[in-house]
Amino acid sequence: MSTEKNFEWAFAKHPAPNADVDEQVFSLREIEYPTAPSEGQVLLRATYISVDPYMRIRMNDGGDSYFQPFEVNKAFNGGVTAEVVASNAPEYQPGDKVIGFLSWKKFQLVSLNEHKELLKLPNDITSSYFLGSLGMPALSAYFPLTEYAQLTPESTVFVSGASGAVGLSVGQLSKVFGVKKIVGSASSAEKLKLAKEVGRYDDAINYRTEDLDKALSQQFPDGIDVYWDNVGGSTLETVLKHMRNKGRIICCGAISQYNPSGEYGVKNLFLIVSKRLSLHGFIVSDWADRYPEANKKLVQWYYDGKIVPHETVLEGFESVPKAFLGLFKGDNQGKMIIKV
Amino acid sequence: MSTEKNFEWAFAKHPAPNADVDEQVFSLREIEYPTAPSEGQVLLRATYISVDPYMRIRMNDGGDSYFQPFEVNKAFNGGVTAEVVASNAPEYQPGDKVIGFLSWKKFQLVSLNEHKELLKLPNDITSSYFLGSLGMPALSAYFPLTEYAQLTPESTVFVSGASGAVGLSVGQLSKVFGVKKIVGSASSAEKLKLAKEVGRYDDAINYRTEDLDKALSQQFPDGIDVYWDNVGGSTLETVLKHMRNKGRIICCGAISQYNPSGEYGVKNLFLIVSKRLSLHGFIVSDWADRYPEANKKLVQWYYDGKIVPHETVLEGFESVPKAFLGLFKGDNQGKMIIKV
Repeated sequence: MSTEKNFEWAFAKHPAPNADVDEQVFSLREIEYPTAPSEGQVLLRATYISVDPYMRIRMNDGGDSYFQPFEVNKAFNGGVTAEVVASNAPEYQPGDKVIGFLSWKKFQLVSLNEHKELLKLPNDITSSYFLGSLGMPALSAYFPLTEYAQLTPESTVFVSGASGAVGLSVGQLSKVFGVKKIVGSASSAEKLKLAKEVGRYDDAINYRTEDLDKALSQQFPDGIDVYWDNVGGSTLETVLKHMRNKGRIICCGAISQYNPSGEYGVKNLFLIVSKRLSLHGFIVSDWADRYPEANKKLVQWYYDGKIVPHETVLEGFESVPKAFLGLFKGDNQGKMIIKV
Repeated sequence: MSTEKNFEWAFAKHPAPNADVDEQVFSLREIEYPTAPSEGQVLLRATYISVDPYMRIRMNDGGDSYFQPFEVNKAFNGGVTAEVVASNAPEYQPGDKVIGFLSWKKFQLVSLNEHKELLKLPNDITSSYFLGSLGMPALSAYFPLTEYAQLTPESTVFVSGASGAVGLSVGQLSKVFGVKKIVGSASSAEKLKLAKEVGRYDDAINYRTEDLDKALSQQFPDGIDVYWDNVGGSTLETVLKHMRNKGRIICCGAISQYNPSGEYGVKNLFLIVSKRLSLHGFIVSDWADRYPEANKKLVQWYYDGKIVPHETVLEGFESVPKAFLGLFKGDNQGKMIIKV
């Protein structure tokens, strides 16, 4: 038995119905160090934790029928990487690196038959990358770009939230697939630089200091074929004006709309009709059976230098609330990660 | 030469930027009776004129890049049926019935090489049907239902504007294709009756006297697979709440939004993401090369009694403004037609 202390981040309470989320939903609690693994179990030590905007929806009371809500008084869970501390299963050895949909606990026992998603990670790539540029954000870019975007070498692409985890992956993968021009938007000079240097965007628009409408007219005099929408709201309304006929909109997120105070009514949806646009919402897990195919390609593109890691790492298990709340304040550049 | 008088409806002026359309945009003018047809021309006498909601967009100044705007001081044009009065082309004989994209004139000369869309109509079916239940509204239902709706015998379908021309065709064709349940909405008891009796809807909701949100909960306890949106605005916002995961929305029109006073901001578009919905705008002419295939089926279904004509006919060429303005007041049941 270890003498190490163990902790978890538990879901303290639902955010008030018309309030933005704050620190009070998070509760750090000391918990017992796990017992030795029984047959078919592994004892894991968390190495990196991912916080993602969609988790805001999981905090709603009753909430959405799709995302499994967090349970009050239980530990949060999500994408986590870990190291095997002890194993009672032949497939795993102490020291193995893994990724899974795990609890936000420093140490946890995991039954393999309840965690079929658990996956061994290579030793020569930093584990955290599999939460970001080689993980869910990259898969979230890969499938809609291949399924819905109909990219050609003539395509013009605009991406809001270009410096976020998914936004950077959309940039990198669009360049892998080949497009005529890709431009992103973000909220600071630093982020524009990141979008261009890491996300491989041809150009980027600072939506806080520039007039988005005018900037889009300049960047896309002939209009936009594909809009990757990470933010929703008034940005969508502005971009709709610049879409070309038969354009495609990938509805990936609406981070500006997850908190109730952000709800914005989009007025010009008749443009969907007159421009014959298509809009596609998605959730990456719909393609779960195709993850292996995509993962293999992503890792290859990483070795080829076409995918470059991008992450904002906050140090320490105690940083979880700061990291999560930071997502909604625009604190992150690329994937927001907690190094446990 | 005929001694008959000739008239046209001309586009008098653009509606004021923030005003709804009114009678002042229409100008009835006496014009010259056409000369005898030159080679390759036919002289036509209009029999039925179609007025359609999308024409409101064609009235905007500068307007939309997609719909060809009406030109001030020139005759309106659109779907019109006619009879050949005189012909200088071997394919047409006096007395032939035709349909085409023609001017709103009692008599007009048409050059066949400028009107390749001109089509001969059968003598045993009333011409006006080809402007409605066998024409554009039916084609507007046929293509999206087959291309986007993914109908199965288990599909639940909701249609706003169910008693309009397209709405009735959507009902009839959904029944031809086979669905589990189809419910429509309309604004009066008379229209609900029409939707059920002519449109073959299983049930219908009066959105003026019933709470749409509650009615949808009752009609679709397990949610809606396919929403055919003829109206946009707050109706779309309400229906989004009732969509099932992976539902399809066909964006056919936004009649409530064509007039500037109707602009409504839709607040809950994040449901597109969380429910992984797809939305498809369309314009029926995108499938123009497949009209013959569809027309053949529609006429067959008409002979089989599966398609039943539906039209509101106003008598007299002078009724044009009343018919058009009536579209936005909900005066029509089924296709709005002017009998010249």
